[in-house]
Amino acid sequence: MEPNIPREQALAYWFKHNAHVCVAESENGIVGSYTLHQNQAAGGAHVANAAFIVPKDARGQGIGRAMGEHCLNEARRLGFRAMQFNFVVSTNESAVKLWQSLGMKIVGTLPGAFRHPEKGYVDVYVMFQSFEQA
Amino acid sequence: MEPNIPREQALAYWFKHNAHVCVAESENGIVGSYTLHQNQAAGGAHVANAAFIVPKDARGQGIGRAMGEHCLNEARRLGFRAMQFNFVVSTNESAVKLWQSLGMKIVGTLPGAFRHPEKGYVDVYVMFQSFEQA
Repeated sequence: MEPNIPREQALAYWFKHNAHVCVAESENGIVGSYTLHQNQAAGGAHVANAAFIVPKDARGQGIGRAMGEHCLNEARRLGFRAMQFNFVVSTNESAVKLWQSLGMKIVGTLPGAFRHPEKGYVDVYVMFQSFEQA
Repeated sequence: MEPNIPREQALAYWFKHNAHVCVAESENGIVGSYTLHQNQAAGGAHVANAAFIVPKDARGQGIGRAMGEHCLNEARRLGFRAMQFNFVVSTNESAVKLWQSLGMKIVGTLPGAFRHPEKGYVDVYVMFQSFEQA
C-alpha cells in the first residue's frame, strides 16, 4: 500500500469486492484487521485473497497469526476453494514463515517486484493454498 | 472478467489506476484494446500489468500479437521495469505461446485457479518479464 494513501481510498480498498472484513480486539481496542474477498471475478471467484494489517505498536504478539488462522477458516466457511496471497515480500521472512506454517505455499516468485526502502529491488512471492474439499 | 459485467463497471476496470489504454484499428473500425497500468501501488509500482481484448470475430489475425508488442514497448517507454500478467489460463495454449514468444516467462502456477466452462478447474499461470535496464 501507498503509506500516505488517503483515508477514503484506503477504506475503499479494504472494503472492495464485497469484502468480508474482521478486526482483532484486545483490552486496548482494535489491534488489527483483515479483508477477505475473491481474488478474481467470474471463473476465478472460487479463490480468495486476503490482506492483513497490524499497527506497529501491536506487533510481535501473535495477532497476525490469530487473524491468519481466523481468515483461512472464514474463507473455507464462505465456500472458497483456495486462498491466494499475491504479494508477499521475500525479505519479510517472518511473514513468509507465518503463512507457510498456516499451510500457504510459495507457488511463484516475481523477480525484483518490490522496491524495498533499504534493500532495493527484492523478490516477491505468490503464495497459495488449496483447501481440502469436503 | 464477468461475461455480463455492466458497461460502467467494465469501463471502470479498463481505465483504473490511470491506465494507459490503446485500441487496435483496421479498416473495419476498432478490433481490439489493451489497458496498461501499474500492477501494485507504492513499492510495486515499477511493475506493469496489462489486459487485452479482441472481439471474437477479429481473432486469428495477429491483433493480439500486435497489441502485445505495442504494449510491452509502451511499458518500457513509460519507465516500467517489468511486465506481469496475473492470470493466464493454462489451457489457453495459444495465449501462453504468444506471450512466451514476446519474452514473458511463467513464474508461477496457481493450481485450479480458473473454473473453465467445459474443462472444470484448470491451472493458471503468472507470467513475468523483466525489462533490460538501459
